[in-house]
Amino acid sequence: MEKNAPIGVFDSGVGGLTVVREIMRQIPNERIVYFGDTARVPYGSKSKDTIIKYSRQIIRFLQGEGVKAIVIACNTASAFAIDTVQKEFSMPIIGVVKSGAKVAVDTTKNGRIGIIGTEGTINSGMYASFIKAQNPNAEVIAKACPLFVPLVEEGMLDDTITEQVAGRYLTALKNENIDTLIMGCTHYPLIKSTIQKVMGEGVNLVNPAYETSIELKRLLETEGLANVCEVDSPTLMYRFYVSDAAEKFKDFANSILPFDIKTIEQINIEKY
Amino acid sequence: MEKNAPIGVFDSGVGGLTVVREIMRQIPNERIVYFGDTARVPYGSKSKDTIIKYSRQIIRFLQGEGVKAIVIACNTASAFAIDTVQKEFSMPIIGVVKSGAKVAVDTTKNGRIGIIGTEGTINSGMYASFIKAQNPNAEVIAKACPLFVPLVEEGMLDDTITEQVAGRYLTALKNENIDTLIMGCTHYPLIKSTIQKVMGEGVNLVNPAYETSIELKRLLETEGLANVCEVDSPTLMYRFYVSDAAEKFKDFANSILPFDIKTIEQINIEKY
Repeated sequence: MEKNAPIGVFDSGVGGLTVVREIMRQIPNERIVYFGDTARVPYGSKSKDTIIKYSRQIIRFLQGEGVKAIVIACNTASAFAIDTVQKEFSMPIIGVVKSGAKVAVDTTKNGRIGIIGTEGTINSGMYASFIKAQNPNAEVIAKACPLFVPLVEEGMLDDTITEQVAGRYLTALKNENIDTLIMGCTHYPLIKSTIQKVMGEGVNLVNPAYETSIELKRLLETEGLANVCEVDSPTLMYRFYVSDAAEKFKDFANSILPFDIKTIEQINIEKY
Repeated sequence: MEKNAPIGVFDSGVGGLTVVREIMRQIPNERIVYFGDTARVPYGSKSKDTIIKYSRQIIRFLQGEGVKAIVIACNTASAFAIDTVQKEFSMPIIGVVKSGAKVAVDTTKNGRIGIIGTEGTINSGMYASFIKAQNPNAEVIAKACPLFVPLVEEGMLDDTITEQVAGRYLTALKNENIDTLIMGCTHYPLIKSTIQKVMGEGVNLVNPAYETSIELKRLLETEGLANVCEVDSPTLMYRFYVSDAAEKFKDFANSILPFDIKTIEQINIEKY
């Protein structure tokens, strides 16, 4: 596998761009091919079988793009599909859920860890099982927050309504005296300050996007896959694909990435 | 075509059940086959081409179930796909958008009509063009309300947060002095009282689900397709299909239909 091959990153839609942003920060000389499954978003309410099928299709597409490793940036796909696809494909595949869980275990002092995410992520119990595997004594308190994604996508990042919704969702977690909270959905870091405000400064927020990019960096070095070539311009280094209309994706991408995306290609993911 | 063949009704997910509820009320002796595309929900953010493709697949599936007429209960699909599928298929197909637009034109006194819906419905401009076709002097003021669907699906039907969100979305419409407002999304009738409260009693709310079931009744009579046979139990009269996990669908269905659904079948819609 060529060292200067790109990293494949995928998500159900735009949220995974927060992971891309972290990878760009942590390993700025790696090329990236991103796929956002905007035709089939959201994954959070879909079944495990469906998510595994979608993940297989996307990985086959990314393989065709010549990637050297894959990051599942979507929490739901990472929770439901990672064990299956790690067995089925030979290239290194990492996901946000395992990375986030590991850091939460390392961070907590009182052993009480909260997790917020979509219904799919929370119902999968995957964060909890990764945490328990590392620290059987940890207490895990999970809460699905289905309104956070649409609020972020409405651009209501710093908004009294978002704060009230956060208040509703997070009160139960506050009362459970957690000291660490995993933001188990890629959209959530964009309302981190609101979540922190509601939870209070005493609670550590874990951002799996950040942790995953650190793990990716380590993995590439260990496997001898780190890129050692010259870096190009963003236009050449980063390629973006979606499964449906690209306009809204572009607006969102340009609001969170450090440069403006010029072209986004639409592909028919059902073919893969 | 057999008179006692069922009506096919489809939607992107659970919302079309508000249309089913109205059909059950208006024409209680008609059998219904419902398909909810829960694997590919929501349609509101997807492109016209994708929505047409999905609609074709669903109509082919419903044809196989032997339906005598089809109701597109999804506003987005009704807006994007109805002209295309009416040309491609020979059976009668009606959609919520045309029915809703017609009644709004008949209802308004000052000629100022508001429309709320998902981004797909609003951006299609279809309600506006149907209204203009019937009354070129009508003023149409449209507003996308993307948070309403997730709020309804969270069960926040009578809630201060929903009221604040409604206040944000609807203020612009209020200031435009409309006297008629089309609830252009199947979920919205479930927060009708909140919408009415924000808009004030002077504004007539049009529920296309209701208007569509009246139009369907008329159509079946005109075409000689109305069922004249004995009615069965709900279990035999109504069949429900989804494209992904049925549990959440069942909970929602049982909260809005007049009887509890026992079985929901999952099918692979991609095959059609």
